[in-house]
Amino acid sequence: MTFITLTTDFGLEDPFVGIMKGVIATHAQDAVVIDVTHGVPPQDVLAGALVLRHAAPYFPAGTVHVAVVDPGVGTARRPLCVETDAGLLVGPDNGLLSLAGAALGTIRRVVHLTEERFFLAPRSATFHGRDVFAPVAAALARGTPAADLGVEVSDLRRLDVPTPVRGTGRIDGQVIYVDHFGNLVTNVGGDMLAGVASITIAGTRVRGPAPAYGAVAPGEPVVVVNSWGLLEVAVRDGSARTLLCVGVGAPVTVAEEG
Amino acid sequence: MTFITLTTDFGLEDPFVGIMKGVIATHAQDAVVIDVTHGVPPQDVLAGALVLRHAAPYFPAGTVHVAVVDPGVGTARRPLCVETDAGLLVGPDNGLLSLAGAALGTIRRVVHLTEERFFLAPRSATFHGRDVFAPVAAALARGTPAADLGVEVSDLRRLDVPTPVRGTGRIDGQVIYVDHFGNLVTNVGGDMLAGVASITIAGTRVRGPAPAYGAVAPGEPVVVVNSWGLLEVAVRDGSARTLLCVGVGAPVTVAEEG
Amino acid sequence: MTFITLTTDFGLEDPFVGIMKGVIATHAQDAVVIDVTHGVPPQDVLAGALVLRHAAPYFPAGTVHVAVVDPGVGTARRPLCVETDAGLLVGPDNGLLSLAGAALGTIRRVVHLTEERFFLAPRSATFHGRDVFAPVAAALARGTPAADLGVEVSDLRRLDVPTPVRGTGRIDGQVIYVDHFGNLVTNVGGDMLAGVASITIAGTRVRGPAPAYGAVAPGEPVVVVNSWGLLEVAVRDGSARTLLCVGVGAPVTVAEEG
Repeated sequence: MTFITLTTDFGLEDPFVGIMKGVIATHAQDAVVIDVTHGVPPQDVLAGALVLRHAAPYFPAGTVHVAVVDPGVGTARRPLCVETDAGLLVGPDNGLLSLAGAALGTIRRVVHLTEERFFLAPRSATFHGRDVFAPVAAALARGTPAADLGVEVSDLRRLDVPTPVRGTGRIDGQVIYVDHFGNLVTNVGGDMLAGVASITIAGTRVRGPAPAYGAVAPGEPVVVVNSWGLLEVAVRDGSARTLLCVGVGAPVTVAEEG
Repeated sequence: MTFITLTTDFGLEDPFVGIMKGVIATHAQDAVVIDVTHGVPPQDVLAGALVLRHAAPYFPAGTVHVAVVDPGVGTARRPLCVETDAGLLVGPDNGLLSLAGAALGTIRRVVHLTEERFFLAPRSATFHGRDVFAPVAAALARGTPAADLGVEVSDLRRLDVPTPVRGTGRIDGQVIYVDHFGNLVTNVGGDMLAGVASITIAGTRVRGPAPAYGAVAPGEPVVVVNSWGLLEVAVRDGSARTLLCVGVGAPVTVAEEG
Repeated sequence: MTFITLTTDFGLEDPFVGIMKGVIATHAQDAVVIDVTHGVPPQDVLAGALVLRHAAPYFPAGTVHVAVVDPGVGTARRPLCVETDAGLLVGPDNGLLSLAGAALGTIRRVVHLTEERFFLAPRSATFHGRDVFAPVAAALARGTPAADLGVEVSDLRRLDVPTPVRGTGRIDGQVIYVDHFGNLVTNVGGDMLAGVASITIAGTRVRGPAPAYGAVAPGEPVVVVNSWGLLEVAVRDGSARTLLCVGVGAPVTVAEEG
């Protein structure tokens, strides 16, 4: 049994995701399709890359992960398949696949998808999820080797992910993702922390790191190490985004014990 | 074939639901996963319990129903498995499972999930859907008896659900759920009604109970007995929430014929 | 293996879609259910019909397509099954099925669903998705012939779809659908275009037709022929709905080269 995951910015209001699943059902009827999310903010390649990076490792080995956040659809950006130890990644070469690629073990091969016989014809200029990536994923699920799908290339495009800066007695990071609950996910890893004296986000000092959201009173902000291993600013039974009025890019400072 | 359902307040914008499905696919690859909904309002345990209670009876016997609306994640609240005549319920012991438990026939056994070998390791403090409930559901789907997952306990936590009050010639109830269409679902059962003289919601008298939404003109409010067997205030081709400006907790009075 | 697709205006916040899947799992446990979308605007039959028309052809032959946008639920509008060369359509007779019917090849048979033994009992007045259409789809997926489900009738209800008007040197059309990205889909087919002198939407001249969204600078509007073969007004890396402040019904004029 082969699993295919889908990660896009298509939303669920339109039939686009359903159409991709129709193409997969037509070309690989036994494949099991699982949505990672279709709620990536439109054209936000970094958010899509983060989401895929934190989801892909939880799927069975051999899973085909299709990701489409593709503002360059129809232009010269390359469609790719990235073969790793733990699974296959399919999508545009705009950085979207790069974080998951690094999280899935060694990258064995990067293939520029040039074999048009695996695509739908005619191919639209606006929906390569349907015309390129879904049928290629179906081909992989049927057992087609990645190498048969195009031309091996030397590398894929990387993303500029903001990284935290360690100074003397402090770490300066930022918010890189905000979830549905309004939790503010930062780029500061829980494993970077030794003795924490204080944590400040956008000028507000917040208690933590705490063992759970429930360590503070309802309505109070708190810092936890979240399920991605990252520092996260939350509000118990509420939304940190709303209470603190901040979003992606907000500065976070960890002061270390002296 | 075993079905696993998911009911959460995680939304679909993030990868959380997809990650749970990845864990299930990894640990019970033949299980079929069905979303009940992930649109429970954040941290609204009562709404989650109502949703699960009205959905679970429509699934095949033996289905494993996972529900996660869990503001206490990471604290001392217990993770549970509730074994009933008609299926298994898995989730936090905060009342979320109690209404569905009662709707699925006799409760045979309540198990406090303590056998950590069935969990993912390391276990995060913020995402037990991924680390506890998904792998436990997969174990149940593989045929692991509920009793093997932990320690049998005497009971699960119940919810305070508002109940309608029958007075002389009247029933006083309230709105307990508002759906996507803006229909106002009350706690007054259709089977409580004998001769209805009038129905009033938040001071506005509404026609009904009618046999269908279409019994009134477009834009008009109407009361029907809905698919959950409850009185519901709707607006034909419109939204009762918007027209009447009311929500959960709004009072509803049924005056009975004299 | 039989596929069943679902297209509704139920949204995903409530358990309604999950309940339909529970009914299908109970009555046709091997059927694979795929969501086309549940984000059709409430009661918007034309939007639902367009969505289904552009999705259904991408599914395997024999797929059962269930569509429920049904403001007349519980009234005298007929429940139908439409048998075509390429698949089966199930839903209310309010025009919702008519565009997909025409897109799936010859209509072989239209059946008024009158055989109540295939429905759930008791049948609610508000949720025929659960009580009529899901169990009928399950029966079809199990191999029940459409003709066994009711009485053959001569025709189904059609929709008034706005059609573009070709004048001397110009085509006058309109926006018929707006997607999640804010792209404005018109009723002007790409195959109607010969030499285009200019394209105007709601008084604003827009560049195109271009080969891809990326043909203009970020933030600029552009016309492309989209994946449905229709003229679409988009904004690169942005939303045409927001930038141009127009929606369904906005006039579009193509001036042809002299």
